[in-house]
Amino acid sequence: MMGTVPFSHVVHLLFTGELPSPKVGRVVDALMVASIDHGPGSPSALATRTAASGGACMKNAAVAGFLTLDKSHGAAVEDCMKVLKKVLELTQVSSSGEEAKAAIIMDFLKAEKEAGRKIPGFGHRQHPHDPRVDKLFALTMDAGVSGDYLSVAQAISKALSEKAGKELPINVDGAVAAILCELGYPVGLGNAPFLIARLSSLLIHAYEEIESMPRMRRIDPVDFGYVGVADRELPKYYQPADED
Amino acid sequence: MMGTVPFSHVVHLLFTGELPSPKVGRVVDALMVASIDHGPGSPSALATRTAASGGACMKNAAVAGFLTLDKSHGAAVEDCMKVLKKVLELTQVSSSGEEAKAAIIMDFLKAEKEAGRKIPGFGHRQHPHDPRVDKLFALTMDAGVSGDYLSVAQAISKALSEKAGKELPINVDGAVAAILCELGYPVGLGNAPFLIARLSSLLIHAYEEIESMPRMRRIDPVDFGYVGVADRELPKYYQPADED
Amino acid sequence: MMGTVPFSHVVHLLFTGELPSPKVGRVVDALMVASIDHGPGSPSALATRTAASGGACMKNAAVAGFLTLDKSHGAAVEDCMKVLKKVLELTQVSSSGEEAKAAIIMDFLKAEKEAGRKIPGFGHRQHPHDPRVDKLFALTMDAGVSGDYLSVAQAISKALSEKAGKELPINVDGAVAAILCELGYPVGLGNAPFLIARLSSLLIHAYEEIESMPRMRRIDPVDFGYVGVADRELPKYYQPADED
Amino acid sequence: MMGTVPFSHVVHLLFTGELPSPKVGRVVDALMVASIDHGPGSPSALATRTAASGGACMKNAAVAGFLTLDKSHGAAVEDCMKVLKKVLELTQVSSSGEEAKAAIIMDFLKAEKEAGRKIPGFGHRQHPHDPRVDKLFALTMDAGVSGDYLSVAQAISKALSEKAGKELPINVDGAVAAILCELGYPVGLGNAPFLIARLSSLLIHAYEEIESMPRMRRIDPVDFGYVGVADRELPKYYQPADED
Repeated sequence: MMGTVPFSHVVHLLFTGELPSPKVGRVVDALMVASIDHGPGSPSALATRTAASGGACMKNAAVAGFLTLDKSHGAAVEDCMKVLKKVLELTQVSSSGEEAKAAIIMDFLKAEKEAGRKIPGFGHRQHPHDPRVDKLFALTMDAGVSGDYLSVAQAISKALSEKAGKELPINVDGAVAAILCELGYPVGLGNAPFLIARLSSLLIHAYEEIESMPRMRRIDPVDFGYVGVADRELPKYYQPADED
Repeated sequence: MMGTVPFSHVVHLLFTGELPSPKVGRVVDALMVASIDHGPGSPSALATRTAASGGACMKNAAVAGFLTLDKSHGAAVEDCMKVLKKVLELTQVSSSGEEAKAAIIMDFLKAEKEAGRKIPGFGHRQHPHDPRVDKLFALTMDAGVSGDYLSVAQAISKALSEKAGKELPINVDGAVAAILCELGYPVGLGNAPFLIARLSSLLIHAYEEIESMPRMRRIDPVDFGYVGVADRELPKYYQPADED
Repeated sequence: MMGTVPFSHVVHLLFTGELPSPKVGRVVDALMVASIDHGPGSPSALATRTAASGGACMKNAAVAGFLTLDKSHGAAVEDCMKVLKKVLELTQVSSSGEEAKAAIIMDFLKAEKEAGRKIPGFGHRQHPHDPRVDKLFALTMDAGVSGDYLSVAQAISKALSEKAGKELPINVDGAVAAILCELGYPVGLGNAPFLIARLSSLLIHAYEEIESMPRMRRIDPVDFGYVGVADRELPKYYQPADED
Repeated sequence: MMGTVPFSHVVHLLFTGELPSPKVGRVVDALMVASIDHGPGSPSALATRTAASGGACMKNAAVAGFLTLDKSHGAAVEDCMKVLKKVLELTQVSSSGEEAKAAIIMDFLKAEKEAGRKIPGFGHRQHPHDPRVDKLFALTMDAGVSGDYLSVAQAISKALSEKAGKELPINVDGAVAAILCELGYPVGLGNAPFLIARLSSLLIHAYEEIESMPRMRRIDPVDFGYVGVADRELPKYYQPADED
């Protein structure tokens, strides 16, 4: 497959047993790109840079950050997939209209709250409405999926927002969860595309720290600058690219 | 970049500061695909499966294997890049012909051996001649690089084989090292594309073990079967794909 | 404290805020000694040896095994402490006799089973009755504790055995859990003494593999020999030792 | 051995093949106690707390810090042991006096510097003269060792200080290295007692962060307080303790 199939599509093959169509492959690429990084202030990047600053090699420093990727920080996709599958099952049984479905969802959310369980994949401290989610959903609908899980995610967001009296939009974890359900990923692999994507940025954080920073430095978790290049246009061949 | 730039090309951007041209991007995809897996008998896959069998979650089990990826097993790209850069430097000084360059390489190899250092990236127990190397080199030459590092790698292989009295071909680590030199990757990031690629297969090994095997089982490092599907044709859209 | 306080007693200080009395310190030492190792066939030791064989350094190989120590393999102390605390609370409310308490425990176990939760800390594949448990309990009673948690653990074992129709004795995890409850350890630190103890044997497994085994060897998970010395008498100064 | 042999002495047994005499055991305890912690501002503690704050469980957060323990931060014992063994070998050959030995050491240090290698185990940013080193050496001499390695370490410190024109005392890593040489530890296990000791404090850092701090907090690497109890007297039974 070398030379013809992109890396991300081989990953999709490993995870689902099938090579993706070009449009499905584009969705997989998009969600992995969306998962790459939150910047050096995220706990995983900080843990990686702290480890590198203390003398860890690139690989070990990346692992230090990687082990930080737990439920409260980025690895919520799997749990959100379980919720989406459960809710779709509950609402599909009912043949009745939108109102009845909304009531079923509201009951489900109440029961979860009473059992002390959080609904992962909704709400975000920094992005009240995350533009990446719209883009990901548009690419996914364009790839010919049923859209059932995307609808369920939107219905849950609506119900949660009503209950909370404030906007609780689908966040990137929630969007990735809904999309992976659409694409037939097993729940147990839900966090895997995110983990692969995030490793790539952790390796870069480790490398930058090792190459250009003094050892044992005090890393400021808030006051850091961006040292990359300024905004650029995408090369022309990416602009209409892959349209087929 | 979501929806237009493949994941591997964004990784290339992170690592080199530039988005790749389509042909360079194809090389990056090819070398990551070539790095994905060696099968469940490799130490990293075994460590991952053993950890998963003992109760580790997918992420931790993958890390157990990931920490196994050290110099003697797969993470030799960085060291090989150093050797290639050193040898190119030594042979470029000389304006003389092939013979003089071969002598310089032979001297270098002798000095390394006397200092107790191995030359990483050459020879392989299982693949006397690895077809992936030819394919990777062809794709790289097609992407418009100088080819200097590929030549150096071939010259070193020739010298090592002469010294050893047996074929010591460039292996995948060596090929990836030469290609990353051609593409301008910093030496300190040499192992990164391999590590990202390999993580994806370790996550799969962990997932398979967790989903379908009994806990605490004795894992046989040799006698395992392939439970995937039979050989298939690539879908049509991959066959003439990306030709530009 | 150097030169007067043993390492394990400083660990106890870190974990509880107080240095132990000599008899409590002896209990801490005993339970850490009991936690050191299960032999090279345990998943954590296998993962460590596999990683070392593949080229990982001693520290990384030990981490590979360490990450294997999850609920189904050795790190069940914390969960068992929660169960013991819950059951003590339930049975202490009742002022009635043994029979009433046994009924409360039976109800609790039924409810846990219906909720799909296992009771950790009881039963063992290899040791039908583990002699280490009796020794640990005797040392603990000798250290002046109330014994409430030890009694609860025994009552649970009795109830589980009745339900199962076969002996389900307290295993080492369960014994350590009961003892740490007696000694006032916070539940969140329940697995810590075990993890420290187990790290020491994982470092040894890694060291042995690196020093005396060929790289990339196939590790047989069952057929291994013991290469240490034969049984020896303890030195005289340990025999009546620490009796105070 | 449960109930009679302290944990640290069993660790010594694992590492050397022999149970220690009480005085040797006291040395092992002292050096492990000396290795426990450098406070929350050390890179390993910071990495652990950052991981815990991001949602990692206690074990994983401890591993994140553990992987930080590399050559420039705490795990230099093994390399220092190699230097001490080399220098003892060089100076023992010569039957001549102190002056000749000092010259041999000076030549060795020059050669190492020219080869670009640092001498680990000497000098410390914060402790110009570390009182723990004197205490450790006194306990070691009291345990009946030859003292050859302690002398070599002192001679190297003297030579390094002369060369640098400022005091470069033996630091804790250097002292532990010299002591483990005296006690017959294999070089490859040199970092192991430190790693075990340090794991215990990393587990505590993780636990404190998880139990008492908000998730995703910004951890200040410098401005932190001590929340433990005030200075206390050691209990009476530790004061004349273990004198035999």
